[in-house]
Amino acid sequence: MLKLVVAPPRLAMRSSSFRKAAFSTAAAAAAATRFQGGVSMVQGASRGIGLEFVRQLLKRSEEGRVVATCRNPDGAADLLKLKKEYENRLNILPLDVTNETTIEAAASAVSETYGSLNLLVNTSGILSIPNVLQPETTLSKVQKSSLLLTYEVNAVGPILVIKMGGGSGTEREFAVVANLSARVGSIGDNGLGGWHSYRASKAALNQLTKTVSVEFSRKKDPIVCILLHPGTVDTDLSRPFQRNVPEGKLFTKGFAVQKLLNIIDNVKSSDNGKFFAWDGQEIPW
Amino acid sequence: MLKLVVAPPRLAMRSSSFRKAAFSTAAAAAAATRFQGGVSMVQGASRGIGLEFVRQLLKRSEEGRVVATCRNPDGAADLLKLKKEYENRLNILPLDVTNETTIEAAASAVSETYGSLNLLVNTSGILSIPNVLQPETTLSKVQKSSLLLTYEVNAVGPILVIKMGGGSGTEREFAVVANLSARVGSIGDNGLGGWHSYRASKAALNQLTKTVSVEFSRKKDPIVCILLHPGTVDTDLSRPFQRNVPEGKLFTKGFAVQKLLNIIDNVKSSDNGKFFAWDGQEIPW
Repeated sequence: MLKLVVAPPRLAMRSSSFRKAAFSTAAAAAAATRFQGGVSMVQGASRGIGLEFVRQLLKRSEEGRVVATCRNPDGAADLLKLKKEYENRLNILPLDVTNETTIEAAASAVSETYGSLNLLVNTSGILSIPNVLQPETTLSKVQKSSLLLTYEVNAVGPILVIKMGGGSGTEREFAVVANLSARVGSIGDNGLGGWHSYRASKAALNQLTKTVSVEFSRKKDPIVCILLHPGTVDTDLSRPFQRNVPEGKLFTKGFAVQKLLNIIDNVKSSDNGKFFAWDGQEIPW
Repeated sequence: MLKLVVAPPRLAMRSSSFRKAAFSTAAAAAAATRFQGGVSMVQGASRGIGLEFVRQLLKRSEEGRVVATCRNPDGAADLLKLKKEYENRLNILPLDVTNETTIEAAASAVSETYGSLNLLVNTSGILSIPNVLQPETTLSKVQKSSLLLTYEVNAVGPILVIKMGGGSGTEREFAVVANLSARVGSIGDNGLGGWHSYRASKAALNQLTKTVSVEFSRKKDPIVCILLHPGTVDTDLSRPFQRNVPEGKLFTKGFAVQKLLNIIDNVKSSDNGKFFAWDGQEIPW
């Protein structure tokens, strides 16, 4: 059982009076330091936006621990490089969102090592796989197998990871779950059509996250759930589809994650269940 | 290949001059007669709202043909009773939305017999199955198998049925696809949480229908796609969950389908891609 709480019992903050002191300062200062200590988990961390989250979370603090999960840690060259640099602060664990056994094993390992998490970022997602999955340009190209696979990875996976979250004994304000969604998952904003499987999976992820956020808002130790649209970021996921991106609108991973971490750092409990673009603007459902 | 068009080539309207005349009358009159002739297909017609659609479509006209599909026609006692009464106007075909072979066979049969459809209503859907599927009250009860099964039936199924639709040679205004959704599929309206699998499947159905509606709006022979919320209707689907329905808010099938047919009859091309409640009010995404 993976616990999502704000103040991990064995880690980060040195004493409960320190914790209280930190949060008696101005809200802005509290927000800015919220995830610099503590334990963050980034799910889907071997490359792209997930890897960049790990990198920035490690760089921004001398204290914070980061759990980075991916399907195959042995093949995750960039994570292994970071591990050399941040030996004691980075923990790489295997986790495949399509395999519940691996989710449970990762949750147990986190629980044993850290007790609980302050921040969970779900970044894994699929849009295309050469010779297997292509974003559909028309209804005639929609395949049942594509709809189901994309749903399993993009919507079911993150929810099963969050399901492991419990939450008790928090001594800070709240823990945060941030799910990477996408503007094309917005139904109201869908003016172009196409990408049926991906759009449906992200709309479903939005609905699942909203549903979970309602439940979490009733907890004694609240967890705030948000959905994030990173913009179009120069990653393996977007690479086959970058042709039509207007100049200046293809973001580096560094820029996008800096913006997303800024949203996470400043999130308020009233933001629970909301869907934000990289620039902080809310996106319609 | 199942064609969705407005004027079926072999059926219903007697001459192209008649068709043109019918649509040179006032819009209200045209709307009122739109689906009284022609061919309508109701998918998921053995019971509940689907069965009631078949019944009302047959009763309202002396001309219209109705194709009623369900998983097991031999066991569909109520449809078989209607067949005795409407021998020449009702065609019952096997179709299981989780089985693409049956969708294709039904589409071929419709195409051979009628050429095309004026109206397609997708009503099949699951919420609970005793000992198999229960709407979740908390995240801890969410099962991967429930998420996937509900998605397959409620979101993937209707889209695969629509996929068979083509659309050419229309001589009336437009054909209509109506997908039965539910207010609990609305993300913006989700204030209670719970029912994770069902909510996610209906949000995905909404997104898929919106996506398809964008493509259909570009066709030479337009097809208007709408999503419908029937209210809480006294059917097998809602029966285990009727306890908390306020007095006067549990609708009979007859009332709900009358309201939904009224929306379908009066739909305008500018309604394409919209989500309507039984009373005609738009529901937020």
